[in-house]
Amino acid sequence: VTSTSTTTLTDVQSRRDDRNIPIDLVGVSDLRYPIVVWERGGGRQETIAQIAMSVSLPHDFKGTHMSRFIEVLNRHRGEVTIRTMPLILADLKQHLDAERARVEVAFPYFMERTAPVSQARSLMDYECRFVGELSDTANDFILTVTVPVNSLCPCSKEISDYGAHNQRGYVTVEVRCGQDEGGAPAMIWIEEVVEVVEQSASSPVYPLLKRVDERHVTMQAYENPAFVEDIVRNVIQVFREDPRPNWLKVTAVNDESIHNHRAFAQSVWTRTDRPS
Amino acid sequence: VTSTSTTTLTDVQSRRDDRNIPIDLVGVSDLRYPIVVWERGGGRQETIAQIAMSVSLPHDFKGTHMSRFIEVLNRHRGEVTIRTMPLILADLKQHLDAERARVEVAFPYFMERTAPVSQARSLMDYECRFVGELSDTANDFILTVTVPVNSLCPCSKEISDYGAHNQRGYVTVEVRCGQDEGGAPAMIWIEEVVEVVEQSASSPVYPLLKRVDERHVTMQAYENPAFVEDIVRNVIQVFREDPRPNWLKVTAVNDESIHNHRAFAQSVWTRTDRPS
Amino acid sequence: VTSTSTTTLTDVQSRRDDRNIPIDLVGVSDLRYPIVVWERGGGRQETIAQIAMSVSLPHDFKGTHMSRFIEVLNRHRGEVTIRTMPLILADLKQHLDAERARVEVAFPYFMERTAPVSQARSLMDYECRFVGELSDTANDFILTVTVPVNSLCPCSKEISDYGAHNQRGYVTVEVRCGQDEGGAPAMIWIEEVVEVVEQSASSPVYPLLKRVDERHVTMQAYENPAFVEDIVRNVIQVFREDPRPNWLKVTAVNDESIHNHRAFAQSVWTRTDRPS
Amino acid sequence: VTSTSTTTLTDVQSRRDDRNIPIDLVGVSDLRYPIVVWERGGGRQETIAQIAMSVSLPHDFKGTHMSRFIEVLNRHRGEVTIRTMPLILADLKQHLDAERARVEVAFPYFMERTAPVSQARSLMDYECRFVGELSDTANDFILTVTVPVNSLCPCSKEISDYGAHNQRGYVTVEVRCGQDEGGAPAMIWIEEVVEVVEQSASSPVYPLLKRVDERHVTMQAYENPAFVEDIVRNVIQVFREDPRPNWLKVTAVNDESIHNHRAFAQSVWTRTDRPS
Repeated sequence: VTSTSTTTLTDVQSRRDDRNIPIDLVGVSDLRYPIVVWERGGGRQETIAQIAMSVSLPHDFKGTHMSRFIEVLNRHRGEVTIRTMPLILADLKQHLDAERARVEVAFPYFMERTAPVSQARSLMDYECRFVGELSDTANDFILTVTVPVNSLCPCSKEISDYGAHNQRGYVTVEVRCGQDEGGAPAMIWIEEVVEVVEQSASSPVYPLLKRVDERHVTMQAYENPAFVEDIVRNVIQVFREDPRPNWLKVTAVNDESIHNHRAFAQSVWTRTDRPS
Repeated sequence: VTSTSTTTLTDVQSRRDDRNIPIDLVGVSDLRYPIVVWERGGGRQETIAQIAMSVSLPHDFKGTHMSRFIEVLNRHRGEVTIRTMPLILADLKQHLDAERARVEVAFPYFMERTAPVSQARSLMDYECRFVGELSDTANDFILTVTVPVNSLCPCSKEISDYGAHNQRGYVTVEVRCGQDEGGAPAMIWIEEVVEVVEQSASSPVYPLLKRVDERHVTMQAYENPAFVEDIVRNVIQVFREDPRPNWLKVTAVNDESIHNHRAFAQSVWTRTDRPS
Repeated sequence: VTSTSTTTLTDVQSRRDDRNIPIDLVGVSDLRYPIVVWERGGGRQETIAQIAMSVSLPHDFKGTHMSRFIEVLNRHRGEVTIRTMPLILADLKQHLDAERARVEVAFPYFMERTAPVSQARSLMDYECRFVGELSDTANDFILTVTVPVNSLCPCSKEISDYGAHNQRGYVTVEVRCGQDEGGAPAMIWIEEVVEVVEQSASSPVYPLLKRVDERHVTMQAYENPAFVEDIVRNVIQVFREDPRPNWLKVTAVNDESIHNHRAFAQSVWTRTDRPS
Repeated sequence: VTSTSTTTLTDVQSRRDDRNIPIDLVGVSDLRYPIVVWERGGGRQETIAQIAMSVSLPHDFKGTHMSRFIEVLNRHRGEVTIRTMPLILADLKQHLDAERARVEVAFPYFMERTAPVSQARSLMDYECRFVGELSDTANDFILTVTVPVNSLCPCSKEISDYGAHNQRGYVTVEVRCGQDEGGAPAMIWIEEVVEVVEQSASSPVYPLLKRVDERHVTMQAYENPAFVEDIVRNVIQVFREDPRPNWLKVTAVNDESIHNHRAFAQSVWTRTDRPS
C-alpha cells in the first residue's frame, strides 16, 4: 500500500448536494468508551458507556466527517456529566460545522447498597443515560435512570387466602430540569432517582441479602402491593413536589411471574405552574 | 386450592384513585402471537408477532384489567392489517373502557427474491411494524419496514486505487399516509418500501446468490457508492413524489466494516403542500 | 454490469489448501426461514425459525460453497421434524460433499393453554430447538425446549410470617433419545416436555388468567415452593423413569425478584442401565 | 416488619434431599460488577464484568447458599486475572463447601489503537472472557477474546472486474495453556490474541481513521482477501507454533454484506506432540 498525503485526497463529503433534503441527525453510534461520572458523594466513578453522537447536516452538503466525532470524544474522555455535556456539544457543533449537535451516553452506574437488617454491603448496577442537545436556539439535557424493583400484585394479594405473585420490575425515569434560583440549570443526582423509585415500588432489590434480610424484604413487599400504575403515580407524586423537574416520563415494566409477557404503564408529566 | 366464583372476588383495579395522575398508557407487551398479514399479491402470510397493547387510564381509576387485552387479541387473531387495525383498536377502547387505545405489532415478513443473473429464488425476511392509535378525536397508523442493504463508501472508493469498503446496512422507513381521493386512508405495501429502499442503496442483499450473481452484485455496489446520508435522501426523494405519504422518518445505519461502531443518518419529512 | 456465464468464473473455494488444518464446521447462521413442525395432536404448525447449517471441510480444500446450504434448505422448506431431519442432513452431506453435516433450528412453538378455573383459552409460546448431526459413523438428534414457569422460594416462605418471593423462571430441557423396541429412534414431543416441566415448578405461567385463575395460581405457587435445584431434580426424576431418553441436560434459571441477578442450576443425566 | 436474629431462622437449604440426583452447577449469573484486569504493559485496567459463579451440589443436600457467592466476589473485587482466579475458586469451593467451583467473567477490554498512516490514536473495545474451574482433581482456565475484523471475499474479488464485497467479521479465540518450563501455568495476553487475529483477517478495524488511513485500510483489505475458513486456519497456524497453548477453539463469523445471514467457520485444535 502506498500512502498519500491527506491534502491530495478528495474530500467527497464536502461536495454540494442538490436534492434539497436536510439531514436531521448524522453521526456514529454503538461506540463503547470508558467514561467518568460524578457521584453525589463527591467521588468520580469510572464506567463504560455506549455512545451515540450526531449533528444536523444542511441540505446542500453531501456528507459529514465521521472521524471528527471520535476526535471530539477523545478530547473529553475525562468526564461526561451534566456540567461537561455543554462543552462536548459545543465542541461537536464547532468541529462538525453544524447547527445542532446531539450526544447520547448510556452506562451502568454502581451504588453500594446496605442490606436492611444484616447491614451487609455490596454493589448494585443501575442502567443510566444522559441525552444532551445543543442548537443555536436551545440547550437540552435529559437524565434517564432505570431502577430494578420488586413489585407485588395488589389484586393477587387481595383475592388469595395466602401468598401473592410478585416479580422483578424495571422503573425508568426520564427527567428534564429547569433552572435553579440563580439561573443555572438545576440537576438531579442518579442516587436521588433510585431512592424515589425504590420507595414507590413494593420493595427494593439488593445484590446481597442474608436470611434475616430476605425475611424483611419478603414481608415488606407483601405489605406494600403495587400495580405498575401505582408505581408510575408514586414516582410522579414525589417529583412534582420537587421544584427542580420541569418534565418527567415514568415507565414501569413488570416481568409478570404468572405470565410469559410483561405488564407496563407510562405517563408523562409536565410542570404547568410556572413558565418552562 | 379451593376455587371461588368470580363474583365474590374483589375488583381491586376498579377502586378510586386520589393521586390525580392520569396514566397515558397501560397494558401488556412482549407478547408473542401468530398473526396473518396481507401480501401485495393478494396472498395471506402467516407470521409471528411481538405485540404491545395499551390504553389510557383516567386519573381516578386505580388500574386497568390486563386480561382483557389478551381476550381482544384472541378475537382478532385471524388478521392484523391496516384494514383491521381500526377494529382491534375500537374493540380495545370499548372493552377497556378507555379514551385512547394503542397497538404495536412487530413481525418478520418474507418475500421471495430472485437472484439478478441466475434467477435463483429464495425467501428473505424483513422486520416490519404496525403502530395504530385510536382516540375520540384521532386515528393514526404508521407502517415501519427495515430493509437490509449493501452500502459501499463513496469516500473509500474515491481515495483508493482499488477496492472500497462496503458493509451490511439497515434502512428503516416509518410512513404515515393521508387519505386517498375517495377519503379512505391511503396505504403503502411493505413490498413497495422494500423496492424503494433497495434502489436507494449501493445494492440489495439476497438470500441466495450463485457465482454469476455475486459478480453482478459486487460490481453493482461498486458502481453505486452511497453514504448513509445519500440513502436517507434517496428514499425521501422517491416518496415525496408519491401522493400517499404525509409523513416519513427514514433512518440508515451501517455496520461499518472498517470500524467497530456504526454510522447512521436520519431525517423526518412532512408534506407541507397540502393540508394533513 | 456485464454478466458472465457460470462456467467461466473461477471456483476459488475448490482450490487446494496446504495449511493442513481441517475445518470442523463451516456454513451459514442467523438465517430466518418459515418452517412447519408437527404437533402431538397430529396438526402441522407453521412457525418461523432461526437456522444454522454447517458441514466439515477436509484439510486440503480451501472453502465450502455457501449457496448450496440455502438451496438444500429451499428443497426441504415443507417440514423440519425429527423424522425429516435425517433427510436434510443427508442432502447437505451429499451436496456439500462433506463427511459431516449439522443443522440447528430454533423456533417459537405455540400451544393452546386453558386457564385452571375459568377454562379461558389462549396461546402461549415456547422456545424450541432441534439440533441434528450426521456423519459416516453417527446420527444424532437433540430436542431442546425452554418452558417459562413461576418459582416460589422455599426459604423465603419458611422464614417469613407471610408472603414469599416468587418470580418468572425458565427451565430448559435438552433431551437425546435412544431407539424404541423396533430399532427406530424414539422421540419425545414438545408437549410432553412442557407438561413435565410445569409439574416440576411452583406453578405454570399462562397467557390469559381471569381473577379466579389468578387466585388459583397464586395459592398453587405458595403451596409448591421450589428452588432451582428442586426444579432440575424434579424434571430428571420424571424423565429417568421414562424409557425413551438416553441423555438429558436440565437448566433452571430464575429472574430473582429480590435481586438484580439470576439464580441457576444445571445437571446432566445419562442412562447407565443399558447400552446407549 | 419485625426482624429476627439469624440463628432462629431455619436453614432450608441444608436439609437432606432423597432424590439421589447431584446438581452439576448451581449459582448466580448475570451479575454486573466492576473488576480490574492486568494489561500486558503492566497497567491495571478498570472495567465492568458480567459474572457467573457456581459450584457442584452433592445429591443429598437440598440447596446451596446463594448469598455466599456475592460475599466471595466482594472479597476479590480488587482484581480478576489468570493469577487470582485460583484464589477466587478456592474461596468459593471452601465457603460453599463444594467439590467443584466455576467462575465465568465476561468484560470489554480497551486497547489504544494507532491509525496506520496518520498515527491518530483512539481506544477500541474487545469482548473478553475468563472461565476458571477448580475441583479436587483439576484446575482449568480458558481465555476467550473476540476481535472485530474486516474480511474481504476472495471469490468476489476473483470473479469481479472491480470491487469485492467485504464486511465486519468477528473472530473468537478460546485458548487453554499448558505449563511453562518451571511448571507454572503458561499464559497468553489479550493483546497477543488481538494481534494474531488481526494479521489473520483482511485488515484490522479501527476506532479512528483519517482519510489517508481509510485509503490504506481499503487497499490492505483488497490485497488480503480471506474466507472465514482462511481466517480460522491462519489463527491456528500461528498459535500451533507457539509452545504455550494446549488447546484452541477458533470461530470466525462474517456479517455478510451481500446477504441477510452470517457465514461462519470453526475449528478446535489440540496439541498432540506432548502430554497435556
